[in-house]
Amino acid sequence: MHCNTNDLTLLKDSLSISDPMGDLLEGNSFSEIHEALAKASRILIVSHARPDGDALGSTLAAAMWLQNEGHVITAWNEDGLPEKFSYLPGASLLGKPTEQVEYFDAVLVLDTASKNRLGETLLARARAPLWVAIDHHVSNEQFTECNWIEPRAPATGQMLAAGFLMQGIPITPEMATNLYVAIATDTGSFQYHKTSAQTFEIVAKLIRAGVNVGQISQEIYASQPRRRFELFKHALVHTQFSADNRIASTSLSRTQAIALGISPEDTEGIIDTLRSIKEVLVAAFFEELPDGRIRLSLRSKNHSLDASAFCQYYGGGGHDMAAGASIAGSLEFVQTNVLERLAKVLNITLTSY
Amino acid sequence: MHCNTNDLTLLKDSLSISDPMGDLLEGNSFSEIHEALAKASRILIVSHARPDGDALGSTLAAAMWLQNEGHVITAWNEDGLPEKFSYLPGASLLGKPTEQVEYFDAVLVLDTASKNRLGETLLARARAPLWVAIDHHVSNEQFTECNWIEPRAPATGQMLAAGFLMQGIPITPEMATNLYVAIATDTGSFQYHKTSAQTFEIVAKLIRAGVNVGQISQEIYASQPRRRFELFKHALVHTQFSADNRIASTSLSRTQAIALGISPEDTEGIIDTLRSIKEVLVAAFFEELPDGRIRLSLRSKNHSLDASAFCQYYGGGGHDMAAGASIAGSLEFVQTNVLERLAKVLNITLTSY
Repeated sequence: MHCNTNDLTLLKDSLSISDPMGDLLEGNSFSEIHEALAKASRILIVSHARPDGDALGSTLAAAMWLQNEGHVITAWNEDGLPEKFSYLPGASLLGKPTEQVEYFDAVLVLDTASKNRLGETLLARARAPLWVAIDHHVSNEQFTECNWIEPRAPATGQMLAAGFLMQGIPITPEMATNLYVAIATDTGSFQYHKTSAQTFEIVAKLIRAGVNVGQISQEIYASQPRRRFELFKHALVHTQFSADNRIASTSLSRTQAIALGISPEDTEGIIDTLRSIKEVLVAAFFEELPDGRIRLSLRSKNHSLDASAFCQYYGGGGHDMAAGASIAGSLEFVQTNVLERLAKVLNITLTSY
Repeated sequence: MHCNTNDLTLLKDSLSISDPMGDLLEGNSFSEIHEALAKASRILIVSHARPDGDALGSTLAAAMWLQNEGHVITAWNEDGLPEKFSYLPGASLLGKPTEQVEYFDAVLVLDTASKNRLGETLLARARAPLWVAIDHHVSNEQFTECNWIEPRAPATGQMLAAGFLMQGIPITPEMATNLYVAIATDTGSFQYHKTSAQTFEIVAKLIRAGVNVGQISQEIYASQPRRRFELFKHALVHTQFSADNRIASTSLSRTQAIALGISPEDTEGIIDTLRSIKEVLVAAFFEELPDGRIRLSLRSKNHSLDASAFCQYYGGGGHDMAAGASIAGSLEFVQTNVLERLAKVLNITLTSY
């Protein structure tokens, strides 16, 4: 399947909201993705394992969009729908990969930088002649036939919303709410540096399409299970400062996670509390996974560290200010090793100015 | 001074952004306030004591606006500028009340519901024949000659921004940044229920006027002093749950505050962490003040408690979901008393449905 990119200029000229991302479109465009999917009858929509708000909100909004256009939609995630996102409209549309191999006319991959992030089971079960992708990760490996990739977009949900608005695709309140959650969560509540005037313009349109901001904010931010509060307390009590307070790190062993009754999804956001300390340039969170590996989550500020490059060293990836990796070794070994390397990289960066 | 309200309809018809607050204007309008101030040469701008981001951002933006229009501006706050807001553009414009009584042609009161919230010293030093007010508190006592009050606006900063946009008043990057901080902080980073499509539309215009979202977010959210992290930890460790986990509360004694090196401004936001727990309907924070009184901060959700009404019982006030009071008595006495009354009020509300 060839995705023609010659009509990019034409598309950009016809945009009612000038350029939805404030920069040149890369690879294919939304209209090309739309066109490519138009001929597909059965479409599978997928996003990365251990899904966040952007992965899930984008998946559900896209599912509703394509369903409304008459396609037969299946939506899978390797890990299914985390409990804390059960409030998303149409949440029941999302399932886990089936036991048998399934055949589709096309697969739409959302918010996923590399094929293996989709998960082994999902990749083993999904078959289709056409794979297309919409993503905002700078590290996207362009592993599908069609790719619309916008590293400047703060969320895949914003790209979808911009695409819908550009093409006059009707946005139902349910679609708007899913897109809102995608954008709100991936911008850290409209705080991260990729949040732009266009983000606010697009979100204003989503609210006018039917998002109840107070209600959905309460679902996103004020419905934490009690165990997450206990985990938070645990994380703060166990926080360590190193490299002249420029690194803050905390950890969670498997034993502690079990004692606190922690689900994998519960640990999200803890690292941002460490990052919010003035002197801290880099925050790290080490979590022992059920398979014995250690998940490293990394946040940086001030461009003092390229978190994505740092994590790629361990086979991970992400964004320049937020990245992660899964590392083999004991919690103590990985923690010591990563913190030492972090201190070294930070020293090089800071002395090179 | 009489503020004519007859041209309200005319004003609303001429709005380029239809109605900036999504509802009828109450009292006077921005153009009337503008007109009333036009004849004043020396203008004092003030807002409530213990100022938050909305009070300070609105004060500084208004100071720049009126300075640009040729007025001689003085900006006071009873407590001056808290250290954590020192990043605000033009922060040096804000001072404390002088030692002697000062005479002005007009006083512009921002974001302040009642006269006594301005502070004793400030009230004793400021003299002017005309007082005008712009505010979004539902509890505003309309204590000035002219009042533009919009209880539906999520921030006084949003009202100012809407006024500037309506009247074509140039918004410099410095004004935009102050207004952005006002709106971002008073909406809890665009989460509280009064955040509307217009909030997002107005903020988009502020960003286009020169706000650097990533940079200012880092100042607001990622520049917490280390002592605030320690306070946070302290607050979580000392959190108590009562009334079947529907109330979460924590406290800070004077001795603990001194041990942690806490400034009054450091305690802001702690209560939101308690409020974010799913089962919790009401969060309370008790802080022993230097004068021996206890400051109660209260947050509710789901309209299960009118926080403003509850705090008015103790001589305080605020908004329906966020209010406070300063109460005489020992920390333990006040805590016990308030928690008991809270449980009672909650029971009445919950059983009346």
